[in-house]
Amino acid sequence: MLKTIEWKNGCLKFLDQTKLPAEEVYQETADFREVAQAIKRLSIRGAPLIGVSAAYALCLGAQEAEKRFPENYFDFLDQVDNTLRHTRPTAVNLFWALDRMREVWSKGKLKGESMQTINLQLIREAQAIENEDREINQAIARLGSQLIQTGETILTHCNAGALACGAWGTALGAIYWASVKDNKKISVLADETRPLLQGARLTTFELLKNRVPTTLICDNMAGFFMAQGKVDRVIVGADRIALNGDVANKIGTYSLAVLAFHHSIPFHVAAPLSTVDDKIFTGEEIPIEERGKEEVICWGERQIAPFEVGVRNPAFDVTPNQLITSIITEKGILYPPFIDKLKKLKKGDG
Amino acid sequence: MLKTIEWKNGCLKFLDQTKLPAEEVYQETADFREVAQAIKRLSIRGAPLIGVSAAYALCLGAQEAEKRFPENYFDFLDQVDNTLRHTRPTAVNLFWALDRMREVWSKGKLKGESMQTINLQLIREAQAIENEDREINQAIARLGSQLIQTGETILTHCNAGALACGAWGTALGAIYWASVKDNKKISVLADETRPLLQGARLTTFELLKNRVPTTLICDNMAGFFMAQGKVDRVIVGADRIALNGDVANKIGTYSLAVLAFHHSIPFHVAAPLSTVDDKIFTGEEIPIEERGKEEVICWGERQIAPFEVGVRNPAFDVTPNQLITSIITEKGILYPPFIDKLKKLKKGDG
Repeated sequence: MLKTIEWKNGCLKFLDQTKLPAEEVYQETADFREVAQAIKRLSIRGAPLIGVSAAYALCLGAQEAEKRFPENYFDFLDQVDNTLRHTRPTAVNLFWALDRMREVWSKGKLKGESMQTINLQLIREAQAIENEDREINQAIARLGSQLIQTGETILTHCNAGALACGAWGTALGAIYWASVKDNKKISVLADETRPLLQGARLTTFELLKNRVPTTLICDNMAGFFMAQGKVDRVIVGADRIALNGDVANKIGTYSLAVLAFHHSIPFHVAAPLSTVDDKIFTGEEIPIEERGKEEVICWGERQIAPFEVGVRNPAFDVTPNQLITSIITEKGILYPPFIDKLKKLKKGDG
Repeated sequence: MLKTIEWKNGCLKFLDQTKLPAEEVYQETADFREVAQAIKRLSIRGAPLIGVSAAYALCLGAQEAEKRFPENYFDFLDQVDNTLRHTRPTAVNLFWALDRMREVWSKGKLKGESMQTINLQLIREAQAIENEDREINQAIARLGSQLIQTGETILTHCNAGALACGAWGTALGAIYWASVKDNKKISVLADETRPLLQGARLTTFELLKNRVPTTLICDNMAGFFMAQGKVDRVIVGADRIALNGDVANKIGTYSLAVLAFHHSIPFHVAAPLSTVDDKIFTGEEIPIEERGKEEVICWGERQIAPFEVGVRNPAFDVTPNQLITSIITEKGILYPPFIDKLKKLKKGDG
């Protein structure tokens, strides 16, 4: 597996995912602002990985606070937290991880602990989040694999793999486990996932590294292959799940869910419980990030449309729970109705 | 309107559509092989325009036959016809136009007419096809506009505009007529249409030239906007229509039709009767062109996926008639069931 991030001598080292698959470039920084920027421009991406990285970025901020602004340590932490919370609006793991970090430093403040002590505890908390993510990934992968039969072709969208997480991945985790651990003969259809091509650039790259037979298609081809009976199952990740089971995920997921429903193909969402937002009840409340027009009309040097044209670029969409066959979490595979099960698991999780 | 092709002093001048919107480059040739190549690599594209261009390419072949192979004039014409028929398999207008041309030279052969006479008749037939296409476009545009209400947002896929036809266009023709002639305030959502981006490159370019408010989206966003109530109607073109009303059109059309059906949004196909293939009864019989993997994984200089990955690249899909609200032809707007109406109109057309 590729190492997407690494905490090392008080610095965060991370893989710049915008350069994949052409180059494997790592960046190392002690500046939380650089991590915030990296999250914004999708060098660091994937809901679980955003959470882990934000936790480490907060550690970088805490180190800076101790060194440069010891008198305003907590105010500075507030600012760091605020900067990180404004990087991307949809993936709830970001806020979940920052909430955990805030609890650590708030407790330290109440107890009157030293900055050094708090900083050490923050690093431990970030490492705990990272390690838990690894274990959670494994649990999701193992459970998800149970759904997959040998001989199946699985369609996936965007990248919910090792690159999106601390390890293994969620949707791709289930696929890896089925293929590598459980030795099921499966193959994958990977949607390229416009505009930023996480499917083409990242998912095919990961799957080939793990020797899972993979075919790349354009997003608009999914229906064609479903109609031909070439898709046995759809598995995707999630950026935020409402208590009723509505799922926000990469733009295009909703269209896939409608297509799967029309063709009676099972549609699964694989995500850690940290992706469930117990403050909201339906997907309508999930904020959808709108990104810049240049992502759609510029391809590196090449411009593919007149610059005067209007462009819409929502980064996510919401799939209503009625279109979802099951949600694979680390604590079990959930079937509809989701609301009571998600509520109960979130309480246990809290 | 842009002039896509022009017959001029025994040469065919055509716009290289692969270079749009960055450059408006015209190519002029007396060699039918270059026209065949241009059709293959989509410099000339769009079902109606392919038909017209193939007719003129046959005239170029006839001139060459007269000049270089007078003893084997008809054999050479056979070869030219054969070369042109093997450029692209799905759009039936190609075969329809070449059938019309073949009838001209076969009659000439039977009557023992001179090569000069036959060549003149061939040019007249190609010009007739071009002129008819212009009139048919207008009729489709005028009829199609009747379906469109002021205030509507219309989603379209690929390019069924002036660039795809001798003039006006089919799906975009209806949109132009509604906007420019009938003064209805409408706007368009244009799917970018991967892999070759005809929507991003050509449709937005055409619509902006005609001052129709246009917003470009990625193909995977259509469902999102439908769910938000932002799409009032879908209008697309066609590459081949079976007698039962099943429609082959650019890949992604089928997914759109399923999405429109799910959201109870009217889904219209605009096409000349020459696109109806009265030799086939259902869409299952329509051959679907599969194009090269490089179209999906290469973007100019940039490679977006590992070259080892498998790629599928069907250029078209088939939308079953059950998902189609109406088919707009030059002879009227047809509603389901289509089969008897299409049969009747094709007889009148033949």
